[in-house]
Amino acid sequence: MKCFQTETSLSPRKRGFHLITGEILKALPEISQVNAGLLHVHIKHTSASLTINENADPTVREDFESHFNILVPEEATHYQHTFEGPDDMTSHIKASLLGASVTIPITKGRLNLGTWQGIYLCEHRNHGGSRSLVITAQGV
Amino acid sequence: MKCFQTETSLSPRKRGFHLITGEILKALPEISQVNAGLLHVHIKHTSASLTINENADPTVREDFESHFNILVPEEATHYQHTFEGPDDMTSHIKASLLGASVTIPITKGRLNLGTWQGIYLCEHRNHGGSRSLVITAQGV
Amino acid sequence: MKCFQTETSLSPRKRGFHLITGEILKALPEISQVNAGLLHVHIKHTSASLTINENADPTVREDFESHFNILVPEEATHYQHTFEGPDDMTSHIKASLLGASVTIPITKGRLNLGTWQGIYLCEHRNHGGSRSLVITAQGV
Repeated sequence: MKCFQTETSLSPRKRGFHLITGEILKALPEISQVNAGLLHVHIKHTSASLTINENADPTVREDFESHFNILVPEEATHYQHTFEGPDDMTSHIKASLLGASVTIPITKGRLNLGTWQGIYLCEHRNHGGSRSLVITAQGV
Repeated sequence: MKCFQTETSLSPRKRGFHLITGEILKALPEISQVNAGLLHVHIKHTSASLTINENADPTVREDFESHFNILVPEEATHYQHTFEGPDDMTSHIKASLLGASVTIPITKGRLNLGTWQGIYLCEHRNHGGSRSLVITAQGV
Repeated sequence: MKCFQTETSLSPRKRGFHLITGEILKALPEISQVNAGLLHVHIKHTSASLTINENADPTVREDFESHFNILVPEEATHYQHTFEGPDDMTSHIKASLLGASVTIPITKGRLNLGTWQGIYLCEHRNHGGSRSLVITAQGV
């Protein structure tokens, strides 16, 4: 059984949903040594998140941003935790709706995603800055 | 440490939430060889998802369908990605709200789920067709 | 490769979001023996859930409770599964929006969470009682 782990920082992204599959593969090239196993990617923040979704049409990612702004609206008045601005508490809630990590099967040295699947960084803050990831691969 | 992995196709289901625990166990009988570990199930699609919820009363699964249609309504007008119909973008969003994979503890050769827990296939498309899963078990 | 697994019961919590990172670490002290790996925490219930979010300001957790009551309102009339009361079906839906498990990297014997990240028990029932967890650590 093999276990590979690394930490990496993503370059700052604007608020929205961004494909980062390539950056993750580049950060842990040892994935190619795993014949069968799992890749886990964790984001060390509570106002950004990770998810898996369509890797082709950019309007999918724009519609994600629009819809999450409806599900968790900044103009609502019930938030108490607002001292960092209107995108503060909403970012925390969006982050938990999507999750802080994704786990993906590895098969024959490659991520075993569907043809249309990619990994998204979901940047919920207006100015989130660089985001840190911990990437772990386990398998045989 | 042991690692078992397989791919399987689910028979097409109608739109809605469906219990598939039995099919997963059947697809990877090697689970019985794991004394302590984890099972990971990944769906290779972006318009269907997996979750864990109540395995008894079928109205729970019907209420899931009703409520997700309220959280992500097809009649909304803000979606840009609609060329495959009104159930296209909504399915992508529902899929990320629920997630593309579940991870479940294995104890003494069996899934260590609660009494009332089962694995759901969440089929968000009107005509999703057959869905592919990658199933991985790791443990001792 | 090492694999440690235990089951533990949390003391009953009132409805809402509660930090339980300390209790999880206490339940599986063998985490300190893992140099690089993953911790998986699974809740064996369908009306409570787990998530990772801000570990400091308690109003974040109060705002989570407020917002999930808006996303999944008890006063809605479309639920069929209501025989255990208005907090029954809503708890099932909230549980799947957040998820039944979290997976967290372990690095040098410690959870590799961000500075502001903690593990939440999300208790969706009015009287949920004690909740059972299965905690699994795998790594080298």
